[in-house]
Amino acid sequence: MPIIESIPNVSEGRRADVVERLASAIRDTPGVRLLDHSADASHNRSVFTLAGDAGAVKAATLALFAVALETIDLRRHRGEHPRLGAVDVVPFVPIEGVTMADCVALARDVGAAVAERYQVPVFLYEEASANPARKNLEDIRRGEFEGLAAKMASAGWSPDFGPATPHAAAGASVIGARMPLIAYNVNLATDRLDVAKKIAAAIRHSSGGLRYVKAMGIRLDDRNLAQVSMNLTNYEKTPVFRVFEMVKREAARYGVAILESEVVGLVPSAALVHSAEFYLQLERFTEDQILEKKLRDG
Amino acid sequence: MPIIESIPNVSEGRRADVVERLASAIRDTPGVRLLDHSADASHNRSVFTLAGDAGAVKAATLALFAVALETIDLRRHRGEHPRLGAVDVVPFVPIEGVTMADCVALARDVGAAVAERYQVPVFLYEEASANPARKNLEDIRRGEFEGLAAKMASAGWSPDFGPATPHAAAGASVIGARMPLIAYNVNLATDRLDVAKKIAAAIRHSSGGLRYVKAMGIRLDDRNLAQVSMNLTNYEKTPVFRVFEMVKREAARYGVAILESEVVGLVPSAALVHSAEFYLQLERFTEDQILEKKLRDG
Repeated sequence: MPIIESIPNVSEGRRADVVERLASAIRDTPGVRLLDHSADASHNRSVFTLAGDAGAVKAATLALFAVALETIDLRRHRGEHPRLGAVDVVPFVPIEGVTMADCVALARDVGAAVAERYQVPVFLYEEASANPARKNLEDIRRGEFEGLAAKMASAGWSPDFGPATPHAAAGASVIGARMPLIAYNVNLATDRLDVAKKIAAAIRHSSGGLRYVKAMGIRLDDRNLAQVSMNLTNYEKTPVFRVFEMVKREAARYGVAILESEVVGLVPSAALVHSAEFYLQLERFTEDQILEKKLRDG
Repeated sequence: MPIIESIPNVSEGRRADVVERLASAIRDTPGVRLLDHSADASHNRSVFTLAGDAGAVKAATLALFAVALETIDLRRHRGEHPRLGAVDVVPFVPIEGVTMADCVALARDVGAAVAERYQVPVFLYEEASANPARKNLEDIRRGEFEGLAAKMASAGWSPDFGPATPHAAAGASVIGARMPLIAYNVNLATDRLDVAKKIAAAIRHSSGGLRYVKAMGIRLDDRNLAQVSMNLTNYEKTPVFRVFEMVKREAARYGVAILESEVVGLVPSAALVHSAEFYLQLERFTEDQILEKKLRDG
């Protein structure tokens, strides 16, 4: 059975009863599992993690929009986190038995349905975007809800689906498809923040490093050590082991060893299997050889 | 849902209709999946791979015994493979959501039921054995069916369950619990068989090496290279990465590099995850962080 994950971000993090209604809309959709949800009062934003097949995830997303449109008015919304819409961002992530193309198709399908049913303009992002200027969430969201009417009136910012002007209370929504993120940190056997910052600059895409790496150097004061803190945005194209080896090599240049690395939150099984394959020089290996998979799939 | 794997070996590999009846007995047991089966005519032996929870695997094993007792007479059985019984060996292997202790308990439970229902003596082996002299299958099976009556009459060879003398047609059965085996080979960047043999001798348990490694050096004539061919019998206590690193280090002593390694057949997911953890120096990682597991288990 195919699994798509979705992580909708909604512009409400203060009214517990509204957050609970949003969660219930997902939980009550047949075929969907609500795996996690959290609300942040200072961001005034909540994040839901759900999983199911394409039909179930679509139904849950539409149910979530129905509650959000009934309860959220962005004209009165304040919070630290940038936002464009009541349902601000909806990514679809391929997990098992589905391709990125399936998730792109789902994003287009859900985007069209949201626009038609709720008259909310929809922008497609990441892998679902056909327009390089509208691939990054930050670019689409720049100007936020307050600047949205002006932005949509300017060249290049008509939505992918729905009306040419913002929904009065709900703004616009950004819907798309992306790979799972891996939050991955490497702790250095030193407290030198300058070394962590130099390694982060060497390895991250924005300053010349690996294509799917975001990185910064920070200091963990409680442990008295420096850390290269990263987001890996496509573990198939920029694998964990290559990132780790590059950090290790850059650290050695400063006479610094690696203390340890860590995954924060979840990691796809394949990212770990690829690392085992690399280091063990494993050839002719396919995931059908993984015992648990064979026992499940028969 | 817990998964136990079982790989019964039955002393019939020539009569296709009998092998099919044995397979059907497993296949028709509710809650059991027959994942694989194969018959070898020169060994005159068939091997079945099935999975399910403890109750289902027990029911399938008893159904298999019923067919074997009806169709197999070891007094007329000839074949290259050593054997003691009609149902010769039945291992239970913990896969998911079960412990080794669960599989040991299942071996005792099934052993008692087989002895009571079919009057076949049962010897417990590997993890299910409480007696160091009766832990290895080879030690229990030495003398085979033809020598069994004499062996059982000698000191130390009364069975764990059932009558003190062999079943006339079905001999005795060896039932137990063990870890999954991993068939793991390392190919050397040389055709020097002597190097592969020296590495095998260094790494295998029998000649002073690692506790859960069986190894031999062979030559792959079609690829013109030497191979260290291994069975890893407990990947938790002697992990794959440690075996690989030791082979690599021993090879370096002869100026030989590693070409590649390979897994033949199935490997438990955890064996690969442990390798990734080792090489990435991953700390504070638990298998609950594996995305697919989280999505399945919720």
